[in-house]
Amino acid sequence: MSNEDLMARYQYVRHATQKLAGRFSDEQQLVQSMPDASPVKWHLAHTTWFFERLVLSSAVPRYTPVETRFDFLFNSYYESVGVRHPRPRRGLITSPTLEEVRGYRRMVDARMHDALPSLTSELRSIVRLGCEHEQQHQELILTDAKHALCYHMEPVVEATPTLSCDALRSRATTDYFVPHAGGLFEVGTSDEAFAFDNERPRHKVYVEPFEIATRCVTNAQWMEFMNDGGYRNPLLWLSDGWAVARAEQWCAPLYWVQAGEGYLQHTLEGLSDIVPEDPVCHVSFYEADAYARWRAQAQPGLRLPTEFEWELTAAPQAVAGNFLEQGLLKPQPARSNSQKVVQQLFGDVWEWTSSPYQAYPRFSPLAGALGEYNGKFMCNQFVLRGGSCFSPQQHLRPTYRNFFPPHARWQMTGVRLARYR
Amino acid sequence: MSNEDLMARYQYVRHATQKLAGRFSDEQQLVQSMPDASPVKWHLAHTTWFFERLVLSSAVPRYTPVETRFDFLFNSYYESVGVRHPRPRRGLITSPTLEEVRGYRRMVDARMHDALPSLTSELRSIVRLGCEHEQQHQELILTDAKHALCYHMEPVVEATPTLSCDALRSRATTDYFVPHAGGLFEVGTSDEAFAFDNERPRHKVYVEPFEIATRCVTNAQWMEFMNDGGYRNPLLWLSDGWAVARAEQWCAPLYWVQAGEGYLQHTLEGLSDIVPEDPVCHVSFYEADAYARWRAQAQPGLRLPTEFEWELTAAPQAVAGNFLEQGLLKPQPARSNSQKVVQQLFGDVWEWTSSPYQAYPRFSPLAGALGEYNGKFMCNQFVLRGGSCFSPQQHLRPTYRNFFPPHARWQMTGVRLARYR
Amino acid sequence: MSNEDLMARYQYVRHATQKLAGRFSDEQQLVQSMPDASPVKWHLAHTTWFFERLVLSSAVPRYTPVETRFDFLFNSYYESVGVRHPRPRRGLITSPTLEEVRGYRRMVDARMHDALPSLTSELRSIVRLGCEHEQQHQELILTDAKHALCYHMEPVVEATPTLSCDALRSRATTDYFVPHAGGLFEVGTSDEAFAFDNERPRHKVYVEPFEIATRCVTNAQWMEFMNDGGYRNPLLWLSDGWAVARAEQWCAPLYWVQAGEGYLQHTLEGLSDIVPEDPVCHVSFYEADAYARWRAQAQPGLRLPTEFEWELTAAPQAVAGNFLEQGLLKPQPARSNSQKVVQQLFGDVWEWTSSPYQAYPRFSPLAGALGEYNGKFMCNQFVLRGGSCFSPQQHLRPTYRNFFPPHARWQMTGVRLARYR
Amino acid sequence: MSNEDLMARYQYVRHATQKLAGRFSDEQQLVQSMPDASPVKWHLAHTTWFFERLVLSSAVPRYTPVETRFDFLFNSYYESVGVRHPRPRRGLITSPTLEEVRGYRRMVDARMHDALPSLTSELRSIVRLGCEHEQQHQELILTDAKHALCYHMEPVVEATPTLSCDALRSRATTDYFVPHAGGLFEVGTSDEAFAFDNERPRHKVYVEPFEIATRCVTNAQWMEFMNDGGYRNPLLWLSDGWAVARAEQWCAPLYWVQAGEGYLQHTLEGLSDIVPEDPVCHVSFYEADAYARWRAQAQPGLRLPTEFEWELTAAPQAVAGNFLEQGLLKPQPARSNSQKVVQQLFGDVWEWTSSPYQAYPRFSPLAGALGEYNGKFMCNQFVLRGGSCFSPQQHLRPTYRNFFPPHARWQMTGVRLARYR
Repeated sequence: MSNEDLMARYQYVRHATQKLAGRFSDEQQLVQSMPDASPVKWHLAHTTWFFERLVLSSAVPRYTPVETRFDFLFNSYYESVGVRHPRPRRGLITSPTLEEVRGYRRMVDARMHDALPSLTSELRSIVRLGCEHEQQHQELILTDAKHALCYHMEPVVEATPTLSCDALRSRATTDYFVPHAGGLFEVGTSDEAFAFDNERPRHKVYVEPFEIATRCVTNAQWMEFMNDGGYRNPLLWLSDGWAVARAEQWCAPLYWVQAGEGYLQHTLEGLSDIVPEDPVCHVSFYEADAYARWRAQAQPGLRLPTEFEWELTAAPQAVAGNFLEQGLLKPQPARSNSQKVVQQLFGDVWEWTSSPYQAYPRFSPLAGALGEYNGKFMCNQFVLRGGSCFSPQQHLRPTYRNFFPPHARWQMTGVRLARYR
Repeated sequence: MSNEDLMARYQYVRHATQKLAGRFSDEQQLVQSMPDASPVKWHLAHTTWFFERLVLSSAVPRYTPVETRFDFLFNSYYESVGVRHPRPRRGLITSPTLEEVRGYRRMVDARMHDALPSLTSELRSIVRLGCEHEQQHQELILTDAKHALCYHMEPVVEATPTLSCDALRSRATTDYFVPHAGGLFEVGTSDEAFAFDNERPRHKVYVEPFEIATRCVTNAQWMEFMNDGGYRNPLLWLSDGWAVARAEQWCAPLYWVQAGEGYLQHTLEGLSDIVPEDPVCHVSFYEADAYARWRAQAQPGLRLPTEFEWELTAAPQAVAGNFLEQGLLKPQPARSNSQKVVQQLFGDVWEWTSSPYQAYPRFSPLAGALGEYNGKFMCNQFVLRGGSCFSPQQHLRPTYRNFFPPHARWQMTGVRLARYR
Repeated sequence: MSNEDLMARYQYVRHATQKLAGRFSDEQQLVQSMPDASPVKWHLAHTTWFFERLVLSSAVPRYTPVETRFDFLFNSYYESVGVRHPRPRRGLITSPTLEEVRGYRRMVDARMHDALPSLTSELRSIVRLGCEHEQQHQELILTDAKHALCYHMEPVVEATPTLSCDALRSRATTDYFVPHAGGLFEVGTSDEAFAFDNERPRHKVYVEPFEIATRCVTNAQWMEFMNDGGYRNPLLWLSDGWAVARAEQWCAPLYWVQAGEGYLQHTLEGLSDIVPEDPVCHVSFYEADAYARWRAQAQPGLRLPTEFEWELTAAPQAVAGNFLEQGLLKPQPARSNSQKVVQQLFGDVWEWTSSPYQAYPRFSPLAGALGEYNGKFMCNQFVLRGGSCFSPQQHLRPTYRNFFPPHARWQMTGVRLARYR
Repeated sequence: MSNEDLMARYQYVRHATQKLAGRFSDEQQLVQSMPDASPVKWHLAHTTWFFERLVLSSAVPRYTPVETRFDFLFNSYYESVGVRHPRPRRGLITSPTLEEVRGYRRMVDARMHDALPSLTSELRSIVRLGCEHEQQHQELILTDAKHALCYHMEPVVEATPTLSCDALRSRATTDYFVPHAGGLFEVGTSDEAFAFDNERPRHKVYVEPFEIATRCVTNAQWMEFMNDGGYRNPLLWLSDGWAVARAEQWCAPLYWVQAGEGYLQHTLEGLSDIVPEDPVCHVSFYEADAYARWRAQAQPGLRLPTEFEWELTAAPQAVAGNFLEQGLLKPQPARSNSQKVVQQLFGDVWEWTSSPYQAYPRFSPLAGALGEYNGKFMCNQFVLRGGSCFSPQQHLRPTYRNFFPPHARWQMTGVRLARYR
């Protein structure tokens, strides 16, 4: 990527973050509703600290940090960098103030503007990573704020069309499955184009013949599961999942609330109807897995896809890596009217796969503190593929591996089914 | 109290609350650092809701609440009023905003101004109670904010003389004990002057002859306890206290931090020296009790005073109830240079007594929702007497009974010793 | 007490313990169902260790313990004696075996037989204490085993008349209250006859005029409370009690199980009917207190008695201390047919009082390790008076103070009401 | 398998279980030291109930169970069979007694003897499964009893040569790695010979070229890791693993206790030396993974093997399934003196692999209640391969998949390293 392109990318991403945060009131940007979620203000500061600490402090001789204590306050999880403010207390940081965090962003942006033209190629690649990193946090800003505003609260964010999930409006009424012949394929990427370390390197996998649903499971289908006692039948659930479901008293997706005979859902725009044809959202891996078993009672073999079945479906040419540049992500094909074409792969909901999150063969973490970026989380999590309506759309690609623990529900997570042929 | 006096009292108290809150930045007014502590913003709203819900809604025909959902958000613990927002999540209330809460205060003040002249005597007494109630919350604003700012945080409140504990500057270097003959006395109050229900009614108690220390235990004395292994010797501790002390790894009063060979303390003005002659503060009942046992090794019989020994010391005429009006609380006598006079009774630190918090004989809770004001907490708590430098000084009186669980440390709590003669 | 009397007492108590234990199968003597309860086998060993460690090791020159590791295994809570096996793991002690513990008892009994005639008077008083101590554990053997066998279990102990609560069969259908004039009285004891340190010294208290129920609250009365929603109405409960009741989902006394429209109860003889006229049993202080408030709705002022009201009722002459010898504990008067006489004071159920467990004025703990016997538990507990059908009857007396935390339910605990006149 | 062979197998396995249990005293057979472990007595009953409930009750017309409540008491986790006694309370079952459980075993053995000759082939395959199931529990009897006796306890089991791990005596002093060319292979089994459902079906996987260590990591090597601060360096650990290691204060393998400058270990024979050349045992997946990262600092690429790398090493012909019959498990080759031959594959320690426990493609659980045998645990666990000195040796085979959560330490679990070529 040229210097100009990198600068443009940087400015684009940084601006998008501020615009996104600006949709929330100042007080809404301050709150933290659970240890797993962070305040918007903290996301604003942390993404900035990332550039300061991992780029500027290496690039600028005798660099003077904006504030030394930001290493303590805004480090997320990098043990190499030192001790950190405890995650569950991020909402208690009253100094710097939100206004001061905005100033911090401006200051770092100015310094980055000066430093960018003369960066080493290694630091340039960290800038590129920092942009993708910030886009990940853009999505977290939405999911974390949604949790703070929707969980036990009456949300009052101003409704804006850009926040509503237009993508969710692609609908289908019947399930179709598209066949794949299986065989030995390459997945992941070793290209020079940007990808996270956990997508690398490209490597061979053997895939059994399978078929995959053309669209995600809908709210209407989920209600059938609920009405058939899906949340009350232990035989449908993984043992761990059943324990969580009982302890947390799950009986519907997160944010659904009973209203008379039916349900409404909390959204960032307030309480709203549940559109039957929309993909179901805010279900955990445990629920997704239980749903698949329930469906398999009538249609034997139905299950969640593996992450590689999903990837081969999204990148049929098996040329992942340069996918983004080829424009395959243009919305049109995925929104085709033909029900026999796989739809809703990108930008509707993240799709749980049956694949535990693991390192690819010959996985090699980044050097230095960035080596902690992905590798140390490869345990007790499941891979999600695709991307949601909360994801920055140019940030998505067929090899992208998102991951969350099987009980997590506050991300925009849904379900697509598959089966062996 | 005349209408004019009541109005003056109301305005005085309401104004004092706002002035107090104004010492904190807006963000500092929003945070909640533990379930037991509330955000300043919530205190501002709750004390206002108290007047709206318990006075205005009864006084004004067909009263329209400012916002109906405030019953849900700003009710503290009144089961009679209905379901409440969960206490540990008070810091997540982003609507109304702090600015809107300030508007709510102004609105209720205006309505109170209109309603006050024509209130029934019952409602007038609730106004009086509401003023005392708000003064209690003034103290909580300070202790709760102190916890949020001092616990794991670097405090940056602007230092103001009025916040610093001048009262703590009364010093003494030797322990003197003042004797009391004991006998049958009356304690508590049945007077018409204001008192909380838990101070009522006046009743007889038999008190053994005792003597009581002229001043509180000092920081210097506490350090001797620490240096002698007081925090490591289970024989000094109540069994429950030892369990808490081990689990929480107590080794000094709350907010003390080791600095080199000595200690510093977090205060609202930032880190500061520990003045040896000052009363020790931020110790739990368990620590106070262990300290007394440690002292009793050298001076047999030393112990915490009962709440009635304390009250008889503070109100020797046994005419509690009209005490306040007599001006006995003027600071001069308590600050006497004579070391043989009991000092530091009011306005330095709350003093733990050995008395579990219980109802007085023939205790009768207030009618309606206010019946929950005190009675339902009479269990697993200990009485504290006196009042701290964080307490509004005109709010204190000899019969006042404060109470906290034996493990609580975030209030301004200290120790005075006594013994039987 | 003469040497012969002391020897007789020792042998009587030791034999009674073994006889009691023998009512349970070997395996039933091994289990521990919760941290608060101990296996019968552990009680057998601990009471023996008490005599070995606190009498023999002082009495016999160069005493050789039966096994040195018993100091670790069978010390209950004496910090002065050293580290202890963790209480929740007492059920995991497989060495010594039950048979070896029985041998340990025989061995210590033989040594005590030899040592008793030449003990110092101080050690003789510890033997006397050890006998009372072992009687306390006789009761715990029953309550702890009951918990192990009745909680989530189908009990299969062999039914024996001596275990069944004949005492519980004294019945009454109407509530009568007996008046007391109040005044200044002496309570507790300073006599030479045996009493625990927490009953000492005798001291003055002022008691308001009161009246007290002639009998305990019955199962039939408790069911009225349940049917009227007593377990669902927060306004009846202490704040802490309501939290426990909700968390533990209390809806009836412990060991009651719903059967059709009514209830049955687990007992040591198996599932049995609930006799409406029997005193209600296995309720916590929180439930007892809630019940009293519920009754006070119809009969204002009803409440739990204080421990001193109870004591003055049980020992009207105020001659506690030599009470036992005077034979006042003979069952006849307490079982009078006259409903105007206070009944069921001893040997039916322990009666919760409203008195937090505290030291009496000038309380002085025993010397050495025994100083930990009672004093360090004087916090967060409530006094119970009387004694249950599980208590060795000659062990009870008017000044006896039992104590348990307000949430405890596995002891034989019931309710008597009182009110001010 | 012929009827005679099946009968012989049944009797052999059942007898072995009793012999194994007989090495523990009666009381040792009763205790439960944590929710994850069960008493020996419960294992004796549960394995018997398995045959009664899943074979006899189907095989015998109008079958009368020995005791109907055994369905409640001795069902492990089969939701299809009904409600179960809670797992953490298995140690509280005092009825039936141990003696009665032994009688239950004899009774079911007699009934099985009568029923076996005329079983359907489906039931015969369940008998076969029941034998393997009971062999799994033979290992658990040892690991669970070891936990009860070694954790906080002084063990006093009678030392017997058969319990000591002779297999652990195969030693090596240098690490050698044996290369494998990689490629497309078949793993798992579809043979008719016995295998658990989770080993089925045989299917293709692509394996990168790798090399694998000829023996397991030794105690001496583990001590180097400890001495180099392995337990104190977060950079070596998975994020979840570090959290557990800190919370549980891990600083050595389970059962190791510091003794002077070195360590001893609790074993079933009592405290014993740690033999430097023995495979390290009782380490969790988290520790195994951290160890591999530590080793990779000096030898880049070292890591845990995948379960398929392990399987291809153990069954080089890729003819798993009939492996057992071919006698490849004879100890001789695995104990070769040549250090270039892979040793210690079976019967030393279970070896953690990097493979999360998942269903094989086209996995199909057994019918009925047995469908819960393995499938519902395929989440948050890692695969272990090989088998330990506690495993019945004829029970092991190259395709066998054991699984435990990554924090589990009480099984006989060790580490073998691998790397890509």
